[in-house]
Amino acid sequence: MPFSPANPDFAAVVRGSFATQGLMQLIGATMERVEPGAVDIALPYRDDLTQQHAFLHGAVTTAIADSAAGYAALSLMPAGSEVLSIEFKINLLRPATGPRFIAEGRVVKAGKTITVSRADVFGYSDDKPIQIATLLATMISQAG
Amino acid sequence: MPFSPANPDFAAVVRGSFATQGLMQLIGATMERVEPGAVDIALPYRDDLTQQHAFLHGAVTTAIADSAAGYAALSLMPAGSEVLSIEFKINLLRPATGPRFIAEGRVVKAGKTITVSRADVFGYSDDKPIQIATLLATMISQAG
Amino acid sequence: MPFSPANPDFAAVVRGSFATQGLMQLIGATMERVEPGAVDIALPYRDDLTQQHAFLHGAVTTAIADSAAGYAALSLMPAGSEVLSIEFKINLLRPATGPRFIAEGRVVKAGKTITVSRADVFGYSDDKPIQIATLLATMISQAG
Amino acid sequence: MPFSPANPDFAAVVRGSFATQGLMQLIGATMERVEPGAVDIALPYRDDLTQQHAFLHGAVTTAIADSAAGYAALSLMPAGSEVLSIEFKINLLRPATGPRFIAEGRVVKAGKTITVSRADVFGYSDDKPIQIATLLATMISQAG
Repeated sequence: MPFSPANPDFAAVVRGSFATQGLMQLIGATMERVEPGAVDIALPYRDDLTQQHAFLHGAVTTAIADSAAGYAALSLMPAGSEVLSIEFKINLLRPATGPRFIAEGRVVKAGKTITVSRADVFGYSDDKPIQIATLLATMISQAG
Repeated sequence: MPFSPANPDFAAVVRGSFATQGLMQLIGATMERVEPGAVDIALPYRDDLTQQHAFLHGAVTTAIADSAAGYAALSLMPAGSEVLSIEFKINLLRPATGPRFIAEGRVVKAGKTITVSRADVFGYSDDKPIQIATLLATMISQAG
Repeated sequence: MPFSPANPDFAAVVRGSFATQGLMQLIGATMERVEPGAVDIALPYRDDLTQQHAFLHGAVTTAIADSAAGYAALSLMPAGSEVLSIEFKINLLRPATGPRFIAEGRVVKAGKTITVSRADVFGYSDDKPIQIATLLATMISQAG
Repeated sequence: MPFSPANPDFAAVVRGSFATQGLMQLIGATMERVEPGAVDIALPYRDDLTQQHAFLHGAVTTAIADSAAGYAALSLMPAGSEVLSIEFKINLLRPATGPRFIAEGRVVKAGKTITVSRADVFGYSDDKPIQIATLLATMISQAG
């Protein structure tokens, strides 16, 4: 996708905001790729992130998908902007086994106020990705 | 809503399943009301459950909303059933301040295979509820 | 819900906008109740509004639900505003038989820019309503 | 996407079902590409398919997107199956001008009971596509 960033320091802004999210630290998520309109977040499996069948809890899958989609949106916003999720929908496609997960956030349509993003989440075992979820989100830009 | 449970032990089933969710323990959520088609989940605010502005992270709001909606669905299923979220959409309505949150899960339409549930999440300060989110979900029943 | 309208002429604005929608005329929808934050739209069954099993097509159910939710939002906006659907999700709960349908649009949270609305759609046979769908939508206000 | 059809006559089944939808005839939609897991539906602009600003009504955009996503799902189902939309979410990205629209339905994950599909809708003016909407849907297979 041919997006050009409005803020040349977008990567520092995105990584700086991510570092202040208590929840991302609590679950052990890390920010990987940060490009204009594209942000990837990684997460290792952990026993305390599970639902009743010991798979990764759908809410944790959602957490990294929403964050990836939101920071993909933020990467295209002017300096001083902040991003909020207005809403999102997620389809949980398969049991989330892992042991490692990547959420790939991508901007679908960037706007002055509203940005629409998606995120696909993959479980990795032996480097072979299996898609476990897809999210579609509406983000709003706010002056910081 | 006049739902009658298919399993007379529905409350024990629902509470037993909730107790095995590592994530609910990690974030400190507790199950409150359990009635046929209606389950409430409570959560106190905590510093490590936040997004970048120190509000409750949308993914945590989502976690208790999805769980409340899913267990409301499970409360109406036959003995031996398990519930999985196929998908959900959530609108985050206001900044989530707290210091206490309740997610009220309610069944909209119960079916043999598919159950549709919703959940409204409220922040409580001085006993006055303010709605912070609403979720609409599709659940599937699986033999245990 | 205790909403007070920003524009005393809200009902005329809502009915006037509805009257200009080619699609609503094409399918034979009519606007019934218009109150602050609450708009109902009615539709009679017709053979050319069907899917492959002769039930009302889900897209027609969606059309009246989205319109009811959008006009409920518009009813609370200042004079000169226009409303656009940013996005919505709908769950189709049961086969839509009729012969008459009502979509009840209700505002969940009204904001300066963003309004969240829902709509429940009921089929009527012999005055007994059966819920056939529920929609959750995000609307944006624009200066006219 | 490397999908193989369960029914060798999938294209005839999909086209036959489409032909019985009264609504698709009413709005003038035609089925174009039909491949395993991929169905495109085309629609010319018409004055009676509009919202209040003379753009294509979001519900019409939704109609072709939902149909394309549903028939993409049906293309992978065994002989004798029928497809129903359980739910979908659509983001309306830009005003729908046209004069011609194409909805591209694609299967994300095919399952025995549940299939998840998406559809992207493009407006065409002088052969240059502009994306006007994206839909994410959950379909269920039923014995015919």
